Amino acid sequence: MAVTFSISVSVDGYVAGPNQGTDHPLGEGGEALHDWALPLRTFREGHGREGGETGPDDDVLRETFERPGAAIMGRKMFGGGPGPWDESWKGWWDDDPPFRYPVFVLTHHPREPLVFDNGTTFTFVTDGIESALEQARAAAGERDVQISGGAQAIQQYLAAGHVDDFQLSVAPVMLGGGERLFEAVPPLDVEIDRVVATPNATHLRYRVRR
Amino acid sequence: MAVTFSISVSVDGYVAGPNQGTDHPLGEGGEALHDWALPLRTFREGHGREGGETGPDDDVLRETFERPGAAIMGRKMFGGGPGPWDESWKGWWDDDPPFRYPVFVLTHHPREPLVFDNGTTFTFVTDGIESALEQARAAAGERDVQISGGAQAIQQYLAAGHVDDFQLSVAPVMLGGGERLFEAVPPLDVEIDRVVATPNATHLRYRVRR
Repeated sequence: MAVTFSISVSVDGYVAGPNQGTDHPLGEGGEALHDWALPLRTFREGHGREGGETGPDDDVLRETFERPGAAIMGRKMFGGGPGPWDESWKGWWDDDPPFRYPVFVLTHHPREPLVFDNGTTFTFVTDGIESALEQARAAAGERDVQISGGAQAIQQYLAAGHVDDFQLSVAPVMLGGGERLFEAVPPLDVEIDRVVATPNATHLRYRVRR
Repeated sequence: MAVTFSISVSVDGYVAGPNQGTDHPLGEGGEALHDWALPLRTFREGHGREGGETGPDDDVLRETFERPGAAIMGRKMFGGGPGPWDESWKGWWDDDPPFRYPVFVLTHHPREPLVFDNGTTFTFVTDGIESALEQARAAAGERDVQISGGAQAIQQYLAAGHVDDFQLSVAPVMLGGGERLFEAVPPLDVEIDRVVATPNATHLRYRVRR
């Protein structure tokens, strides 16, 4: 059982472009970070669609979908909703969030858990990252805990020394600004675990040494 | 003939660690950025030593040594010298700088060119990056112009739209701070040109689309 994350990042180190907002959840140009993933069979399946490409990119994506037994995400990734914290808002994914396992959302706003038919639950954790990790570990059992994002949640778990391994899917895009993945993260001792290279993205996996 | 750069960068996007200075030219921890290169035959040759490892990392390094016909570097990479601009200072490399082609140094301090027996010349350019590029192109002939660094010189040429392709040798190290490679660089349209992956580093080469 590992604590891990897997995220798409631009060549210049951003996980979202500049001027993020309701119109541009991933910032200007940020959609291109996921161009490699959208045509894939695993991505389409996760969003209730058929068909799609297979191959090394799809293998990587399938693994990141299948490894976790639970996930943790920041409030912004869950989706803050159209206005201030809105209890009718079910997250960006509407009625079929592509997780199918328990998700723990870091927030300052208490809220009852959200339970979906497909196996996804969102539990809102207001007492900090350690509590969320404890709950996620218990829910994941033998499987991994995935820090789904955004950058701030990943940074907090990296800084606290909880991450065992991680994968960067480096998309061939230079966003020129936006939200950096690595900000306020202390030095870490890492080693290369695996590299999968395709014309669409380079998937770099690292293990954190203790 | 292409304008290009090739640089070692940490997983978290730094080309030097924090607190750069005379004691730590590459900042704290920054030496580890070049761990992949030091044992290689090409690196040792370039520094007048024999032996060393061959293989894919060495092939990449040899290419970056052999492709250029001229180079451009910032004043800091040339080496500012022990005190204020010191005409007796011949750069970090002493009497055998590992270039063996004309190098144009961006600086505000006029100085006579430095000529070395091994074919390296340092020409000090005080009238800006466009002038340096023009001189480097003329000196390179059919061969490439290499922007050797540091980060600021690379950023200036990227921002001015002069870079045709570039390579990042991502070293398995997280520095936690220091000098970022990509800072104040506008969005660019890039495509993956080549990836060479070894246990020591991942060499990502991109082409800039116009």
